[in-house]
Amino acid sequence: MRQGSHSPIGVFDSGVGGLTVLKALMAHLPHESTVYLGDTARVPYGTKSGEVVTRYSLKNAQFLLERGVKLLVVACNTASSVALPALEAALPIPVVGVIAPGAKAALERTRGGGVGVIGTPGTIRSGAYQRALEAADPQVRVKARACPLFVPLAEEGWTTGDVPFLTAREYLAEFARDGVDTLVLGCTHYPLLKGVIAEVVGPRVSLVDSAEATAEAVAALLAERGGLASAAHTAPTHEYYVTDVPERFVEVGARFLGRPIPAAEQVDLTF
Amino acid sequence: MRQGSHSPIGVFDSGVGGLTVLKALMAHLPHESTVYLGDTARVPYGTKSGEVVTRYSLKNAQFLLERGVKLLVVACNTASSVALPALEAALPIPVVGVIAPGAKAALERTRGGGVGVIGTPGTIRSGAYQRALEAADPQVRVKARACPLFVPLAEEGWTTGDVPFLTAREYLAEFARDGVDTLVLGCTHYPLLKGVIAEVVGPRVSLVDSAEATAEAVAALLAERGGLASAAHTAPTHEYYVTDVPERFVEVGARFLGRPIPAAEQVDLTF
Repeated sequence: MRQGSHSPIGVFDSGVGGLTVLKALMAHLPHESTVYLGDTARVPYGTKSGEVVTRYSLKNAQFLLERGVKLLVVACNTASSVALPALEAALPIPVVGVIAPGAKAALERTRGGGVGVIGTPGTIRSGAYQRALEAADPQVRVKARACPLFVPLAEEGWTTGDVPFLTAREYLAEFARDGVDTLVLGCTHYPLLKGVIAEVVGPRVSLVDSAEATAEAVAALLAERGGLASAAHTAPTHEYYVTDVPERFVEVGARFLGRPIPAAEQVDLTF
Repeated sequence: MRQGSHSPIGVFDSGVGGLTVLKALMAHLPHESTVYLGDTARVPYGTKSGEVVTRYSLKNAQFLLERGVKLLVVACNTASSVALPALEAALPIPVVGVIAPGAKAALERTRGGGVGVIGTPGTIRSGAYQRALEAADPQVRVKARACPLFVPLAEEGWTTGDVPFLTAREYLAEFARDGVDTLVLGCTHYPLLKGVIAEVVGPRVSLVDSAEATAEAVAALLAERGGLASAAHTAPTHEYYVTDVPERFVEVGARFLGRPIPAAEQVDLTF
């Protein structure tokens, strides 16, 4: 096995959204090198079938494996929902998705009122969050809903004002009525709409973003296996790859990552 | 050349939207057989780069060519905007896009107040409608704007009510202020939002849907080349192919086509 503790962590997502997970990883694990792949030529995954998302996920993982990553983070909620078993079966390295950490964080927060989950049609249809929550706590009450317009709203930058507020009210009013006290933002784009989501569901509902929980799970797993990079080693590197032209990724991605992206290289995964 | 006048017409689109063009073709040319390909595994094209859309378009065209089509209709506005020269260079059959017919129809309608064009970011950024309009009438005043939220709204079925109305007002108020008298709906999804679009721009603005104009252009081209199927031949056939699982295409597609889609076959174009 070529990978050692100083090998990079691999992260893939359908596009820019997974950069929120990368941001949390960088904050929790500042000595780790990373390789990020955004499948921008085939984005979005959330409206596509599990079969197609699994096929794309396996190609993304293969690409990152060839770059010598020691662990794979599936930063995309849709891919985590439908492709994790296939990825675990195909790869010789540990694979961490965002669903299990997000579900765990929600169960730590809820005060018994029930947990809400919002995500793309692919994520919600898969039932992955619902299963993860019920497996950890068979008593938990779960209410899930797909919110397909949230991704295009976040990408368009319409995160405040009437249109996002009325859209959020249309999707979320039932959660407020239903007494849910914890809401999982089950898509990496949704934290950008946190303001209107919080306004609609009210202050008594706690919002869970899976990025933080996933970074903690990765740190714990690497520590347990003795796989953490040491601070004494050379400075960590951060590489970015995309499947469409890089310009928009570099520009929009900086908003998601919270720091500039110096460059991203375009690769062709359609072979 | 294997193709004859009874060979089918090939039509491709990134998904279901192009079925509005197929519907117009069936109405204008009831004796023609057709083969439709919806690239649902890679939809949407409108937010992707010209390079990637051209690559996908060439694969779609190759697939249809192998099915013996006599003429190719590029029903997708984004693909018509960026990939037409590459398709014409690569294919031994005539290729008809939706841009030139739509621009021609707009110039026949305008009363001198200027022509507006709305479409996906890919279509508008390409400048294809603007160039087609200005080439045909150097005096014409053209105003173009991308409306990225219209496709997800139409796919979500939110075509009436506050959210689509306020979204349309945000995108289109400037057209109303600007005295434009003709507005090209430069995306096959937009006719589903015709109601709110008309409400925002007002009754003095004429809305142009390229589907009708494209069907007329295809009929004229086939007639000119002696390539029309004769009524005396066997009944025409209509085949449907998709690149993701067919269920949603068959269900949603019927709304766009205006008649049931008996079945669609899934094919893999990622080789």
